[in-house]
Amino acid sequence: MARIRSQQFLDKVVSADEAAALIKHGDRIGFSGFTGSGYPKAVPSALARRVELEQTQGRPFQVGVYTGASTAPECDGVLAAVGGMGFRMPYQSDPDTRQAINAGVTGYCDIHLSHSGPLVRQGFLGRLDFALVEVTAITADGELVPTTSIGNNNVWLDVADRVILEVNEWMSEGLEGMHDVYYGIELPPHNVPIPLTHPGGRIGQGTLRVDPDKVVAVVLTNAADRNSPFKELDAESKTIAGHYVDFLMNEVKQGRLPQSLLPLQSGVGNIANAVLSGLLDSELGHLTSYTEVIQDGMVDLIDAGKVDVASATAFSLSPQVAQRLNAEAERYRRHIVLRPQEISNHPEVIRRLGVLACNGMIEADIYGNINSTHIMGSRMQNGIGGSGDFTRNAYISAFVSPSTAKGGAISCIVPMVSHHDHTEHDVMVLVTEQGVADLRGLPPRQRAQAVIKVAHPDYRPLLREYVERAAQEANSAHTPHALKAALSWHIRMLETGTMLP
Amino acid sequence: MARIRSQQFLDKVVSADEAAALIKHGDRIGFSGFTGSGYPKAVPSALARRVELEQTQGRPFQVGVYTGASTAPECDGVLAAVGGMGFRMPYQSDPDTRQAINAGVTGYCDIHLSHSGPLVRQGFLGRLDFALVEVTAITADGELVPTTSIGNNNVWLDVADRVILEVNEWMSEGLEGMHDVYYGIELPPHNVPIPLTHPGGRIGQGTLRVDPDKVVAVVLTNAADRNSPFKELDAESKTIAGHYVDFLMNEVKQGRLPQSLLPLQSGVGNIANAVLSGLLDSELGHLTSYTEVIQDGMVDLIDAGKVDVASATAFSLSPQVAQRLNAEAERYRRHIVLRPQEISNHPEVIRRLGVLACNGMIEADIYGNINSTHIMGSRMQNGIGGSGDFTRNAYISAFVSPSTAKGGAISCIVPMVSHHDHTEHDVMVLVTEQGVADLRGLPPRQRAQAVIKVAHPDYRPLLREYVERAAQEANSAHTPHALKAALSWHIRMLETGTMLP
Repeated sequence: MARIRSQQFLDKVVSADEAAALIKHGDRIGFSGFTGSGYPKAVPSALARRVELEQTQGRPFQVGVYTGASTAPECDGVLAAVGGMGFRMPYQSDPDTRQAINAGVTGYCDIHLSHSGPLVRQGFLGRLDFALVEVTAITADGELVPTTSIGNNNVWLDVADRVILEVNEWMSEGLEGMHDVYYGIELPPHNVPIPLTHPGGRIGQGTLRVDPDKVVAVVLTNAADRNSPFKELDAESKTIAGHYVDFLMNEVKQGRLPQSLLPLQSGVGNIANAVLSGLLDSELGHLTSYTEVIQDGMVDLIDAGKVDVASATAFSLSPQVAQRLNAEAERYRRHIVLRPQEISNHPEVIRRLGVLACNGMIEADIYGNINSTHIMGSRMQNGIGGSGDFTRNAYISAFVSPSTAKGGAISCIVPMVSHHDHTEHDVMVLVTEQGVADLRGLPPRQRAQAVIKVAHPDYRPLLREYVERAAQEANSAHTPHALKAALSWHIRMLETGTMLP
Repeated sequence: MARIRSQQFLDKVVSADEAAALIKHGDRIGFSGFTGSGYPKAVPSALARRVELEQTQGRPFQVGVYTGASTAPECDGVLAAVGGMGFRMPYQSDPDTRQAINAGVTGYCDIHLSHSGPLVRQGFLGRLDFALVEVTAITADGELVPTTSIGNNNVWLDVADRVILEVNEWMSEGLEGMHDVYYGIELPPHNVPIPLTHPGGRIGQGTLRVDPDKVVAVVLTNAADRNSPFKELDAESKTIAGHYVDFLMNEVKQGRLPQSLLPLQSGVGNIANAVLSGLLDSELGHLTSYTEVIQDGMVDLIDAGKVDVASATAFSLSPQVAQRLNAEAERYRRHIVLRPQEISNHPEVIRRLGVLACNGMIEADIYGNINSTHIMGSRMQNGIGGSGDFTRNAYISAFVSPSTAKGGAISCIVPMVSHHDHTEHDVMVLVTEQGVADLRGLPPRQRAQAVIKVAHPDYRPLLREYVERAAQEANSAHTPHALKAALSWHIRMLETGTMLP
């Protein structure tokens, strides 16, 4: 109870079941949580039990789940598993949630993370009935110390009719002071410039505000975030990371990037994490990061003195590094700033700082379009996340991926991507284990030549064959496509289990 | 010669042929010009004559053409017609240029207009050998009064090795004071917030700067921009405009937009112009505009006292309205601000102001993806222009189009667009003569239902058939596609001349 320093909030402490009992079928709930960090640990499970009970009694019970980004099995997972999630936005990566989305049970809106909070503020996605937010502590004057993510919490707390707080005593009180919550965002025409000019800048306050009259329940928890370990770096990831780092070093050499580069952004996942590890072995120093998620690789860069400061909206750590961060939060908060995702992903700030964006992908096509979200055109994987925010506004935008998947049955370089998340207009560099395709300033047919060089050797002749066929069949020599064959690789994969003929 | 108020520049006056003689094969040239306004009138033709002469003597002669956006037959057209344009960026709409691009003679890089100047500044598109810029006058202290567009002129003048100026005496000296050239953009890490908080704000200076030592030639001209008349508004355009205005009025009624709306952006073309005319007949007043191009409809709104101030980077007027603007430039400059396109199209400013974006399109698909550029997947029409800058960062993003083209042979609503310029993540509203599809907050299958309602009745059963087939064949119920049929309408069009079976 020591974490709740205000009597007004102490009076509202209830069990998770009591809190969950306040929620009705059809309610829209703004959850805390971003890439598995800072999600509520107790009320979602209590709510899932209620959903099950109501459903066994023949009453429908589904809620709308609004988050920062992905949460965890104890939050997204439990609700999806009981069919209790009617609507979901803006990013997820939980297996049960993914299944509910692809089964058509959960309606999923896949939204740029920088748009997600503003769209709710603007009233375009309906009213929020609840905000359900995990915090580290409640201060004596009733403000909230965030935990391991901020995400959309500031927005949910501002706009929701009612608020349920989870106070998680596992989270170190040393996190206090790591966060920078900016309260200068207004609806137009009242907006002003966001005064952030450096990744480490602090322009807000350390705590989240909440109207105490809206708080209807406070629940105590004591649990770590459910973090997954990163895969051991394999040779392929290291090769990809090496190519990307070499590319950056050459930009420095050519005078197109400063010696300490520009702020690094790095998408979620193993390859992105490998890139960070690749930087650890480079000569580069005094680096900065302006990104949405801090992964193990970034913490290692901070520990090694390579990165001076990293800005993000959340952590996504292995259990081991999460423990270290929690134990030494006072030290890490000198090098880490967590912000609301409307700031970490804001086009204004990303473009101003000149971020070097590096994101994973599902597939790219010969003209440099990127599919980040859909397997074979229809099946949702996770969502676009912040990749569009960073890619569109980056100083240099790169996508990294092995050139094949499923043991070579899938080529990650295809004639035409089966779903478009980032278009040719936004993509500067593609990196696979085969090398770097630098697409800057290249017209489409030259882009195709460059992209084919980073495809897997098994698929290069097939891609060249497609290019030749397209040159014959297309109605133009500008972006030649053979429309009958453009999606044939995906069709073949669905029918035969491989893209190879 | 009275327009050249500096002796240093008077000394450099030469003929267009003498200026063109300075240019070599392979040179990259930054031209002024944006949507047919403010392009150089004399040197491009002189250069085209040189190209022809060299080529008849067996010597190759091609240049790289960098502009603001589209120019005119006297600029893009003459160079493309003689095969003298090896490279072109970032937007064009000239018939000869389009033909050269689709024939594979001209390599065309289709770039977001807000990216075009910065990419050159960043050194990613090579060095610029020349800036070739039309101006109204040269001041006594050697600064340049722009004409009817600014576009990328500030960037070209800054970065080019050498500068050729055309002083166009046709342009009213009353234009002086209409422009606002911001010189606060730096390369990161030195960028600061752009201090613009209102469409009519002035944050820069009235003239363009140039290093006089770089100026190698000054050419005198006296010619109007080659403006095309807008088509007489037909019933279909009026219906589309009416639907969009009704949609905006309802947003006001629902409390989601202020009474005077938010700054209007309007794409180039007849439908966009019709929307502006539609606003003329509405009750709305004290409107503002933050857009890239001022068309006739906007000038009418200013004349009617409906629009207080309009910000853009260029005009695109009928000959009649161009005359009026030139004759009364002193009056119009109280209501119009012309800016560099890196400011008119800057994500930072667009998002801050909360722009209402309304752009034309070639086709949309059932999930809300938009093709703005390619006919049947391969053939370039004009380019993405600023539509991505505005759409991605808009408060509300809308696309408007008749539901069919070519007398009904083409449906502008298709199962899958044949080229993607704006993805499902960016598109909120589709408007055809059939009505409005409001896609905000809708998951993909619900989006499909809404989109099909604004398709032409002749195509609705075919779209429903596709949706049913996709539900059967797809590997997911999230974004169901029948990959074998997804592009079949375009294939049928290419083979039979109609999308109808």
